[in-house]
Amino acid sequence: MKEAVVLLSGGLDSATLLAVARRDGYACHALSFAYGQRHRAELDAAARVAKALRAVEHKTVTLDLSTIGGSALTDISIPVPDHPSEGIPTTYVPARNTVFLAVAVGWAEVLGAGQIFIGVNAVDYSGYPDCRPEFIAAFQEVAKLGTKAGVEGWGVSIQAPLQKLSKAEIVRLGTSLGVDYGMTVSCYSADSQGRACGICDSCRLRRLGFAEAGLPDPTHYR
Amino acid sequence: MKEAVVLLSGGLDSATLLAVARRDGYACHALSFAYGQRHRAELDAAARVAKALRAVEHKTVTLDLSTIGGSALTDISIPVPDHPSEGIPTTYVPARNTVFLAVAVGWAEVLGAGQIFIGVNAVDYSGYPDCRPEFIAAFQEVAKLGTKAGVEGWGVSIQAPLQKLSKAEIVRLGTSLGVDYGMTVSCYSADSQGRACGICDSCRLRRLGFAEAGLPDPTHYR
Repeated sequence: MKEAVVLLSGGLDSATLLAVARRDGYACHALSFAYGQRHRAELDAAARVAKALRAVEHKTVTLDLSTIGGSALTDISIPVPDHPSEGIPTTYVPARNTVFLAVAVGWAEVLGAGQIFIGVNAVDYSGYPDCRPEFIAAFQEVAKLGTKAGVEGWGVSIQAPLQKLSKAEIVRLGTSLGVDYGMTVSCYSADSQGRACGICDSCRLRRLGFAEAGLPDPTHYR
Repeated sequence: MKEAVVLLSGGLDSATLLAVARRDGYACHALSFAYGQRHRAELDAAARVAKALRAVEHKTVTLDLSTIGGSALTDISIPVPDHPSEGIPTTYVPARNTVFLAVAVGWAEVLGAGQIFIGVNAVDYSGYPDCRPEFIAAFQEVAKLGTKAGVEGWGVSIQAPLQKLSKAEIVRLGTSLGVDYGMTVSCYSADSQGRACGICDSCRLRRLGFAEAGLPDPTHYR
């Protein structure tokens, strides 16, 4: 069976991603990060999703990005915005996807897995630079040149199947694959039980996605 | 004053690197990782070196790469080789420099620092793929495309001033800049007091460096 590492935050996009990787026949090794995020409830969601969608295993790597701070998600003194902002919002975590992909590449090497799935999306998104196709393409080169896998020629490919989908399309796709979005947590300010604020950028995009898809929104709001 | 993030392992190369960055007039923010390495004594060495070479601050980020294992340095069940190996040795830590550079880029963004210094070397080295110039060049693209700094146009540059130097040249350079190598720890099997085994690949390259430079070896062997 083909092996893949799947980056799993516990949110809507990455749950859909895992369902897509499973549909495509991969044995999925789900990878989450305890990175000092304020919405740690997403890690409980990731565990639920990994189990429900039958990942072969699920690891959570501890990586304390609150040491460097600089984001509303990793520095509790920076509030999560309650309205869309101009430019790159304060919820941007510096270099987060680069760090996550780097660890994923490392794990893929250890496993001998040839694929990494990442749920980045550059349509209905918050404008984070590390969600753009050009970033993923550049990282592909790093994965090739910076690894034993690349030197040995079997390489590790980065797959971003949600990249060009709208949020509504993602929701429809996941629903068709049996994803229960009620178990996912997208909210940046989720409480300890995973209940959503309904007003942060992540909640806003998610809510609109269900509305545009014409599907009921199963999110647990508080 | 120009600001730089300097990756500091506590070994010979990165101590020289910090001295070079200081010579070049940078205010240096030293960055180390508690990554689950077996030779944790290098972290004490990093703290000593950061202080001695007057880094403006020194942070140690916790990042548990032993979760993914796959290296003699992060998996205690894989022995550190006591002789040079064919190809890439088992001390290679999958994607380590990619991970370290990624966090460094994130911190540089937070600080507004335009430079990252990394002590990779592709002359007297162990053949790690993520020490090669082509890897550093590829990562430079990732740093440009995956960050707010890149989007805003001020960017973050990766500097690898030791890349083309032999170990002897590195030792001579550092000595001329006043580096006390007695406070550094390079050994993969260093004991808790930082004393070196004298036989691992890292010890071997270091020892040869002092010999070829015609300088006394201040390493504390056990």
